Amino acid sequence: MIVNGTPTRSLWPVADGVALIDQTELPWRLVVRTVRREADMAEAIRCMRVRGAPLIGASAAWGLALAMQEEASDENLAAAVERLVATRPTAVNLRWALDRMQAVLSPLPPAERIAAAAAEATTIAEEDVAQNRAIGAQALALLRKLSPRDGQRLNIMTHCNAGWLATVDYGTALSGLYQAHDAGLPLHVWVSETRPRNQGLLTAWELAQHGIAHTLLADNAAAWLMAEGRVDVVIVGADRIAANGDVANKVGTCLKALAAARHGIPFYVAAPRSTLDFACPDGRHIPIEDRGSAEVCQLAGLDADGHPQLLTQSTAEATNPAFDVTPADLVTALITERGTCTASRDGLATLYPEVSA
Amino acid sequence: MIVNGTPTRSLWPVADGVALIDQTELPWRLVVRTVRREADMAEAIRCMRVRGAPLIGASAAWGLALAMQEEASDENLAAAVERLVATRPTAVNLRWALDRMQAVLSPLPPAERIAAAAAEATTIAEEDVAQNRAIGAQALALLRKLSPRDGQRLNIMTHCNAGWLATVDYGTALSGLYQAHDAGLPLHVWVSETRPRNQGLLTAWELAQHGIAHTLLADNAAAWLMAEGRVDVVIVGADRIAANGDVANKVGTCLKALAAARHGIPFYVAAPRSTLDFACPDGRHIPIEDRGSAEVCQLAGLDADGHPQLLTQSTAEATNPAFDVTPADLVTALITERGTCTASRDGLATLYPEVSA
Repeated sequence: MIVNGTPTRSLWPVADGVALIDQTELPWRLVVRTVRREADMAEAIRCMRVRGAPLIGASAAWGLALAMQEEASDENLAAAVERLVATRPTAVNLRWALDRMQAVLSPLPPAERIAAAAAEATTIAEEDVAQNRAIGAQALALLRKLSPRDGQRLNIMTHCNAGWLATVDYGTALSGLYQAHDAGLPLHVWVSETRPRNQGLLTAWELAQHGIAHTLLADNAAAWLMAEGRVDVVIVGADRIAANGDVANKVGTCLKALAAARHGIPFYVAAPRSTLDFACPDGRHIPIEDRGSAEVCQLAGLDADGHPQLLTQSTAEATNPAFDVTPADLVTALITERGTCTASRDGLATLYPEVSA
Repeated sequence: MIVNGTPTRSLWPVADGVALIDQTELPWRLVVRTVRREADMAEAIRCMRVRGAPLIGASAAWGLALAMQEEASDENLAAAVERLVATRPTAVNLRWALDRMQAVLSPLPPAERIAAAAAEATTIAEEDVAQNRAIGAQALALLRKLSPRDGQRLNIMTHCNAGWLATVDYGTALSGLYQAHDAGLPLHVWVSETRPRNQGLLTAWELAQHGIAHTLLADNAAAWLMAEGRVDVVIVGADRIAANGDVANKVGTCLKALAAARHGIPFYVAAPRSTLDFACPDGRHIPIEDRGSAEVCQLAGLDADGHPQLLTQSTAEATNPAFDVTPADLVTALITERGTCTASRDGLATLYPEVSA
């Protein structure tokens, strides 16, 4: 999105490669980079220039398409898949997109792989857009039901960024918010900062672009806002949903789910098919990425004079799990492009019969 | 504390006023300031140069002593109490210390108030030290019981800074950790960053001074560390404890309590008598300070090149409750200078019969 101020997607093919919004530059400035080699796409995923489970999937698909332009051999196909899948471990969309690309490309002679890879990556991206639009329509129906009858605005809390920047377009958690806003439903969004990478600022930036009222909060403030009755519903995205409905998402999600459960506030998880991992029985089997000390220890702080300082805690080690697992029993429902269901194997089976296979 | 590298307290009287460690300068540098006027002490409390409920109490007592040096009239006594009590609303220690000072000073003729105020402020500070030492001894007994039998270290999570910087000396939550470390109990402390003011960095700095192993984490990571079995016990301080055992403490505390309850991890609150507010029936009656947008919106972040930047989110408003309330049922026990008790009116009555009055 963003219509007059340029990009309408987070990533799109261009003549000499793939253009993407460099999300490490936001919210300071909107920078579009062109990625021309597989290695540069791998770097972009690893360093979070592109992030968000669905966008990671689409980016990896394009990364493999670039790899085929470099060398379309069987060896490079297999090696590029391994290199790309190693960039980030938690979002299953990465493996899903690469498996799908590989299934299309492997049977083909190398000469046909370049065009086929670009076509399949395009299809993956287009399907992502369509699925997220459908997720938003499902969420809109839920938000309508939850909206106050007196015309007061609905207060929605989200975490991290599950907006159009996290997907090819629309977003997962935010897709319904955009559609609700466009449909005239009065909304206000609680945006949690999302330390240590501050992706809440991406969400604030997105919402500001779209004219949706929102308020930033320290992650710590979530339970208090709920206790005060200032939150009507929580909607987040997901990086991997296990077959039993356990949800891996940005670290801190589980804390919000616990607080929502305490206060009887509905807690929804919005995700497309590519985020569902039916091969993974439950959350204990989801690999959780640790992104290392630096993101936490080399934090920026304001000194006593209000100047930003690089605050390297050389005396302290830090732990930095990038995700956590929200147990299925804390999730009110999953919102998918096929409809909503309970976060359970039975619930998922109503929409995706293959979960029981 | 800190013995060879100078201060052994967070605040102490000097010839021409009161010396204090300016905590807004930490962890960058250790700066001691001398405060000579009541107005400067009020500013120091408001701007969090001194912070932590017990230290706020002692600082306010010294602020009133400085006010008496400026003008010891009845009018200025009453007015100074009102000015000082208005500096921060949540920590009840502030009101407690000022009430106590006023009870001593009001009956005296103005000429006797200067010496009496200094003497009472000294007594309040000395009692704080003694109470925190006693709290630590109580906590040490609990930590011994919780420690692994195989000599492995006990993993303790804390939030914010409830160490010697938050009191006159020793600390509340950290007092027991210091005593346990000194007694040879193997410890490791999980230190949460504590956005938006990053007081976790004060805790990391304190622990490093004392040689206690610790690891910094983003506040968001608390539930995941607990889910992974890496946390044995949580100990925090408090800013006000209501008569029913509800605990107001630094925002984010309740999220940790919810996660601890989910995982069956004991959650202790350490606080001296001055933090107990028997006139306050429950947490709904505790005023929660909102410190305004700037602390959240004008945050420092690292840009794409790793340089610290002042990140003013001009498009976003922020909410900034500085505290939250942890319901009594989530608190395993209160640790006070008189012993431990359940977080309930009945529990408190076993140690403080006046709660039932």
